[in-house]
Amino acid sequence: MAPRMTVADLDAFLRAELPGMTSNGSLTIECADGKTCRLRQRYSDQMLRPGGTISGPTLMALADCAMYVIVLSAIGPVALAVTTSLNINFLRRGVAGHDVIAEAKLLKLGRRLAVGEVTLLSGSSPDPIAHVTATYSIPNM
Amino acid sequence: MAPRMTVADLDAFLRAELPGMTSNGSLTIECADGKTCRLRQRYSDQMLRPGGTISGPTLMALADCAMYVIVLSAIGPVALAVTTSLNINFLRRGVAGHDVIAEAKLLKLGRRLAVGEVTLLSGSSPDPIAHVTATYSIPNM
Amino acid sequence: MAPRMTVADLDAFLRAELPGMTSNGSLTIECADGKTCRLRQRYSDQMLRPGGTISGPTLMALADCAMYVIVLSAIGPVALAVTTSLNINFLRRGVAGHDVIAEAKLLKLGRRLAVGEVTLLSGSSPDPIAHVTATYSIPNM
Amino acid sequence: MAPRMTVADLDAFLRAELPGMTSNGSLTIECADGKTCRLRQRYSDQMLRPGGTISGPTLMALADCAMYVIVLSAIGPVALAVTTSLNINFLRRGVAGHDVIAEAKLLKLGRRLAVGEVTLLSGSSPDPIAHVTATYSIPNM
Repeated sequence: MAPRMTVADLDAFLRAELPGMTSNGSLTIECADGKTCRLRQRYSDQMLRPGGTISGPTLMALADCAMYVIVLSAIGPVALAVTTSLNINFLRRGVAGHDVIAEAKLLKLGRRLAVGEVTLLSGSSPDPIAHVTATYSIPNM
Repeated sequence: MAPRMTVADLDAFLRAELPGMTSNGSLTIECADGKTCRLRQRYSDQMLRPGGTISGPTLMALADCAMYVIVLSAIGPVALAVTTSLNINFLRRGVAGHDVIAEAKLLKLGRRLAVGEVTLLSGSSPDPIAHVTATYSIPNM
Repeated sequence: MAPRMTVADLDAFLRAELPGMTSNGSLTIECADGKTCRLRQRYSDQMLRPGGTISGPTLMALADCAMYVIVLSAIGPVALAVTTSLNINFLRRGVAGHDVIAEAKLLKLGRRLAVGEVTLLSGSSPDPIAHVTATYSIPNM
Repeated sequence: MAPRMTVADLDAFLRAELPGMTSNGSLTIECADGKTCRLRQRYSDQMLRPGGTISGPTLMALADCAMYVIVLSAIGPVALAVTTSLNINFLRRGVAGHDVIAEAKLLKLGRRLAVGEVTLLSGSSPDPIAHVTATYSIPNM
């Protein structure tokens, strides 16, 4: 199945729908093909929590956004797809000064629900800093 | 067991540790007794996502913060307690214009792990808009 | 909203649909009112895992069954309602020789999804041994 | 890091510790190398739930067992490692007549916690029927 939206389409859609996440060019969709996608969030000091590690809310927001991108990439510009559940395991400390990468994969695309997993990485280290599974509800179309 | 920190202690600690969450007085700890706590986040338009509903990342960040407050309230000012996992179910749409309330309860306080649940409410409606369970790792002391 | 099925209805339905869980009278539905329910599983040595504690699969199976009972109690005899996700936190050791109790509560009953939580108890202790949230998909009717 | 236990070691350990899962040769450890493992559960009619699909409790019990095997494979014969949380998403119907396969991967092996994911497959289909993440607590050694 070909992706329903190109990276340029997704980028424009996200800027319109989620201006908070995408302002000042901090979020880049590196690729999205209807089954997988990769997002990069440029490092900023606002991501840190006490101890100098990347905060949980930063990672949860990025993972949720990656799920949204992969669902849009698979089904097209449906603004009303909404997260119904999200589970995150925090694995390692993300390092100050490094971008955060989200690699998402669709596990299932049904008529009503899409389920995916997102691996979160810090800079170029291969060891994930967090792992997320999430479910999106797809509106009747 | 008496709480290890009063609401005033918790408030000062949070302002120092999580300035992003607490800036401009948007977050209030209404009560915390070592077993339960209630937080209120004042409504702002920045909480919204497309469709005019309260965004998932807003709810996840608030729930994570409520878990941190309840753990601090139970064990004292341990900045290095960290979330190890968080599971959220989104139940109803939070309404624009209303504060978001987080009511947290400790399910277990062990030597290594604390587990709690957080109910998220929109304004004064009794029906939860989201439900969270989360686990915190407690450092050796 | 009145429950759609009485405890006697639910009991007969469960015996027909889940004979493995209900054989030899080991599972009792103590109450079910369309919003909450309580199930009791009679202790047997087959519940134990190494160390003499109640096994995880025993608790997960009982929680899944309690969610099924509460959904049936709310929407009527729909055999094809299926679990879409389940999250369990194991909190304390269940004790050999004691029945396991499941207290379930509906958090949301939508047209497509039902979400609930289940507290698992060992004998008469008030401290939960596990806590579950689960989502059921409701077929079009 | 070399695995601490061979498949033969793991098989003997599991037969002693979890006789209920391994009786009558229904469960086979196909491989385990300290980072990944694959288990096969031979099909039996007792796995079915109404509608002729593989039951949720069957999948949860197998996933929990696969996590136990991978943790043992990584850290050696520690009977007291216990599951602290498990999250499962049910994706597709498992088919009557086919074995169920569990492919597990360690996401993190810390001093206190091990986190892994398990993909559950039905027969030779490449599409997973369920996806699990789980956390094990590792006792002080």
